[in-house]
Amino acid sequence: MSSLSNGTSKPLDRSNLIPFSSRLREGRALAQDVWSIFNVANLPADCINLGQGYMNFSPPKWITEAATEALNTVAPNHYSHPRGRIRLRDALKTFYEPLFGRSLDVESEILVTSGANEGQYSVFTAFLEQGDEVIMFEPFFDQYLPSVTFNGGKPVYVPLHPPAAHIENPTSDDWTINIDEIRSAITSRTKMIIVNTPHNPIGKVFTRKELEAIAAIAEEFNLLVMSDEVYDCLVFDNKEHVRIATLPGMWDRTVTVGSAGKAFAATGWRIGWLIAPKYIIQPTLAATTRIVFCSNSPLQEAAAAGLEQANDRNFFEIQRAEYAERRAILVDAFDKLGMKYTLPEGSYFILLDISDVDFPEDYPFPESVLGRGRDFRACWFIAMEVGISSIPVSEFYCEEHANIGEAYARFAFCKDTDTLKAAADRFQGLKKFLKH
Amino acid sequence: MSSLSNGTSKPLDRSNLIPFSSRLREGRALAQDVWSIFNVANLPADCINLGQGYMNFSPPKWITEAATEALNTVAPNHYSHPRGRIRLRDALKTFYEPLFGRSLDVESEILVTSGANEGQYSVFTAFLEQGDEVIMFEPFFDQYLPSVTFNGGKPVYVPLHPPAAHIENPTSDDWTINIDEIRSAITSRTKMIIVNTPHNPIGKVFTRKELEAIAAIAEEFNLLVMSDEVYDCLVFDNKEHVRIATLPGMWDRTVTVGSAGKAFAATGWRIGWLIAPKYIIQPTLAATTRIVFCSNSPLQEAAAAGLEQANDRNFFEIQRAEYAERRAILVDAFDKLGMKYTLPEGSYFILLDISDVDFPEDYPFPESVLGRGRDFRACWFIAMEVGISSIPVSEFYCEEHANIGEAYARFAFCKDTDTLKAAADRFQGLKKFLKH
Repeated sequence: MSSLSNGTSKPLDRSNLIPFSSRLREGRALAQDVWSIFNVANLPADCINLGQGYMNFSPPKWITEAATEALNTVAPNHYSHPRGRIRLRDALKTFYEPLFGRSLDVESEILVTSGANEGQYSVFTAFLEQGDEVIMFEPFFDQYLPSVTFNGGKPVYVPLHPPAAHIENPTSDDWTINIDEIRSAITSRTKMIIVNTPHNPIGKVFTRKELEAIAAIAEEFNLLVMSDEVYDCLVFDNKEHVRIATLPGMWDRTVTVGSAGKAFAATGWRIGWLIAPKYIIQPTLAATTRIVFCSNSPLQEAAAAGLEQANDRNFFEIQRAEYAERRAILVDAFDKLGMKYTLPEGSYFILLDISDVDFPEDYPFPESVLGRGRDFRACWFIAMEVGISSIPVSEFYCEEHANIGEAYARFAFCKDTDTLKAAADRFQGLKKFLKH
Repeated sequence: MSSLSNGTSKPLDRSNLIPFSSRLREGRALAQDVWSIFNVANLPADCINLGQGYMNFSPPKWITEAATEALNTVAPNHYSHPRGRIRLRDALKTFYEPLFGRSLDVESEILVTSGANEGQYSVFTAFLEQGDEVIMFEPFFDQYLPSVTFNGGKPVYVPLHPPAAHIENPTSDDWTINIDEIRSAITSRTKMIIVNTPHNPIGKVFTRKELEAIAAIAEEFNLLVMSDEVYDCLVFDNKEHVRIATLPGMWDRTVTVGSAGKAFAATGWRIGWLIAPKYIIQPTLAATTRIVFCSNSPLQEAAAAGLEQANDRNFFEIQRAEYAERRAILVDAFDKLGMKYTLPEGSYFILLDISDVDFPEDYPFPESVLGRGRDFRACWFIAMEVGISSIPVSEFYCEEHANIGEAYARFAFCKDTDTLKAAADRFQGLKKFLKH
């Protein structure tokens, strides 16, 4: 080690700090995010974690073995092409061509990204002009908001209306959109609309009719459609998963987002992809090339192996059945409790109506949940008293509409059945805190 | 598979394309980059690739084994904390504390990023305001330019002056900076200065005196310093690698960038890190959390294993000796040819002066290299006639100063010795094309 200065510096003049960018003042960028507040580290050690949406099981062995094989070969330890490794792009082509009903060009219509998140960020970087408006349905996946504002865009919210009160056993299909509300949200600055199907956190799988109505508006106003379909392999009850890109005329204006993390129980691999026409992929490639240069190589090889073998192994069919069983465990627990919830037709989240959970207002809540929606306190209370963590749904709304989300807590069922059964037992402990 | 529309769309009205962002019109974002032009796919199949800087050997087995172990465990297949996995942050703390001569807080002073590239991008996102100026020395690592402009910044160039013509055997130390030129580049909008030591593509290791002069300017004008030190473990000839963050007063305004890819011969792992005071890390964390959410987990575990064991294994000392041997093979070949080059004191690049390479102007050059600097044609000619690919150095200059770079080709020596020896033999075939 060379003889360096000991690094002792004079005390920092705090008035002289280099200011951070004003873009961080928007889009909740510096707010303490819900994931940090409801992090396992802040909750009782034995709390069952149904909060953040990651699995407590591993990706299939035959896929991790492909990662190991890649690690034992020279090239997959080094840079990939910014478009993604050709093996993965070939596998995506073969897998998605029948689902899109068209041929896909691996050089210009498929782009591998560092997770679906970075893929979406790159689309915003590639297409948003300062002040461009992006329509998103509320509740929305919370990352959309700062990803849009960081790139100069302005989020515009259109509600997904909660199930009408009289509906006894609502499903995610009972969360509805109003096409007139979309139409009246359009201005001369509207550039893009985000569709998320299956939807996080509702689990809604948009119907063909809904997507056709959105498509008609996208065409009329020449909008780019970002269709976030990262839960496309988790659609239940034989519900049809319609891809908006496959509706007449829509290929030309749609970028579809996919995720290896969701598909293969590997949320930490950070491999996602975009499928779109060349004129959308090309600027997005220019963006992602500068943002990350390329995505990690070994796990691209593994994701390729997953897609190559999934159909022969009936992997997604089996996985769907497993998730349906997991969903059933929570649903049964809520039924037994007599609590209202939204039966999700897709994704691995379930919204529980927590309006009836009665907690003392003087409960020792931490600062971080005070001054937030009632759901923050309810989720905290459930974690402490019942031992199950969840995510308050007002986080998925803009401030103005946060009250809609306050009625719900989101529970993730991407956990093994033993964990979910243990949670189901614990849930019964909620009974004594219910108002009715 | 559900019955989908066949996806046939009406022909696209090209006048109706959704326009991409104007930010892509700056910073060469849509230009065909040098890496694509000199890609192996465009060159003769038997060309020896000394172009792009990645290794043709694997990371050490004891490190890839740690990746495999991570893949066989549940948690490291799932999301990491956006700050990075605690094992890696702990390993970075232990490894870097003696080098920085200070204690480092894993919660607020260390941030893991999806490669050094994404880390740097996040700093720009976190700190640049529209119109903020960023000083960079020319030649510069080409990604800086669009990474700055995408975030609204304006690059300002200060030259590294090539060795004076009379110097017989120049080293990277003979590339010099002129402090007055830095000073006169400062305006009221200057926000940041980028230092890259060891330097790509020159191999220059900035001296303590040079860094002190830069530091004085940074303090005087309250500038943020981004010190890109991704080649910090590749400094030769007992040259002292000084970290600008360790100079008096500089910790408070410096973010130091590191890379697992360079350190462990794993350029495709996309694991990098930033070390800086809390007030720099915090906004940068907010940026990276939205850009990528988190970095891939299994290879963070592997990078942690690398740092944990490197000192006990004398890994970097041995690796440095191996790279010195690789450098010697090219240097000997150039000496034998009688060609002038810059002996690099760091990094794994060597600049060859190609002014004397005489190629016919009517050589069948592809469109992609015509209309670019002379060095593009020279590098193409060398690849075709001698069978060794390299990177033309004018790419590392702004257009106005590209002529300085035209005198040089960059050869990477991060290749095994057999490959480099084969290249050394081939280089002698250049003799017949030399002017003198």
